[in-house]
Amino acid sequence: MAEVPTAAISRLVTYLRILEELETRDISRTSSTDLAERAGVSAFQVRKDLAYFGRFGTRGMGYTVPILKRELMRVLGLNQTWNVVIVGVGRLGQAIANYPGASDYQFQYVGLFDVSPELVGRQVRDLTVRHIGELRDFVRENKVDMGFLAVPPERAQDAAQAMVTAGVRGILNFAPVVIGPRPPEGRAESNAQQEIGDDWRGVIVENVDFLAGMKRLAFYTLNPHLKDSPVPEDT
Amino acid sequence: MAEVPTAAISRLVTYLRILEELETRDISRTSSTDLAERAGVSAFQVRKDLAYFGRFGTRGMGYTVPILKRELMRVLGLNQTWNVVIVGVGRLGQAIANYPGASDYQFQYVGLFDVSPELVGRQVRDLTVRHIGELRDFVRENKVDMGFLAVPPERAQDAAQAMVTAGVRGILNFAPVVIGPRPPEGRAESNAQQEIGDDWRGVIVENVDFLAGMKRLAFYTLNPHLKDSPVPEDT
Repeated sequence: MAEVPTAAISRLVTYLRILEELETRDISRTSSTDLAERAGVSAFQVRKDLAYFGRFGTRGMGYTVPILKRELMRVLGLNQTWNVVIVGVGRLGQAIANYPGASDYQFQYVGLFDVSPELVGRQVRDLTVRHIGELRDFVRENKVDMGFLAVPPERAQDAAQAMVTAGVRGILNFAPVVIGPRPPEGRAESNAQQEIGDDWRGVIVENVDFLAGMKRLAFYTLNPHLKDSPVPEDT
Repeated sequence: MAEVPTAAISRLVTYLRILEELETRDISRTSSTDLAERAGVSAFQVRKDLAYFGRFGTRGMGYTVPILKRELMRVLGLNQTWNVVIVGVGRLGQAIANYPGASDYQFQYVGLFDVSPELVGRQVRDLTVRHIGELRDFVRENKVDMGFLAVPPERAQDAAQAMVTAGVRGILNFAPVVIGPRPPEGRAESNAQQEIGDDWRGVIVENVDFLAGMKRLAFYTLNPHLKDSPVPEDT
């Protein structure tokens, strides 16, 4: 795996979703052409994306759905358990905690954190909401693989910093703001920058941004001729 | 605007987000290098993305933040009002209805729809939840620009079909399944296909998929060396 474009990973996720749907419908064989049509990309794109990770089909024979599905799950790391904390347990955090399907991929919620006195101590699913101040000890004492950030936008950066300081190495950011290493206000000096950057070294941030989706939809509603495919394709 | 890659639109959305943040912090000038750094792409990429839509800066002088922001909002269609219906008003639909920021871009919720007797008739924000059976008349009598789909995955396709039949032309799909034109079970004949495909002609579907974000995060947590940029870049 040398250079894999980010968009290829997004497409793998889409192919996996399609394979799961085919499996539900008891369809056991597919092809790059079939996958391509369902994903709205070219068959060449499908073959290229899969080729980053190995040879999965037989030339001219296509793919066996359950095998390709299993292989994509392995490539994506979905054949293992992921322990997840949720930071922010308002409506959105609770919607995430209850979102169907997460547990199918062994994303296991092990801790819920908030600052609101109304929420801390409350039971959500089978977990008691803890105060964010306990996050550091919690991460130290438990295996935490990733954190979902679902606080209001104006608190996202501080909460993200608290997560990183606590040792969370992967963040799924649901807030519509850019989070990342940043020198505190009025301390843009090199030293502070260095320290803060170090904290974030190797931290992975992925974004799930409702507003971004709304904006893309606005753009394509105005410019439907520019929309040829439901999935981004390499150019 | 000839060929604009889908990823470029996603990046425009990110640039806009950055410009808004700069404006909040009273920073009035930026450059392609600065934007690029904050977005995690190359300055060349920034210039190329903007060039699809016009000339926004002065060579060597960079960009004026409020002007570039206004131009990107215009390009994305965010300088106008969008009337939105939400289909599915459980935890997720309610989280969306209350998601901060949507109203900043004049996404206005004009109707909420569900099938659950527990929800229909209930007040969410300033709207009364209606039964999905009323959607068609509602769309006919009101200007509805787009619909947000927030039902459980197993109901997403049927709900999407109901939206399209009712005349909704843009769908933001929050369910982790592929929605689209599809012949009903056992009627894969060409006639049915034709009719159903026609319904969906020109319908724009964008996806906001929590699970896709979780899967990308799992992949990059396992393969951090493949993650060089928080935003997809053209290859």
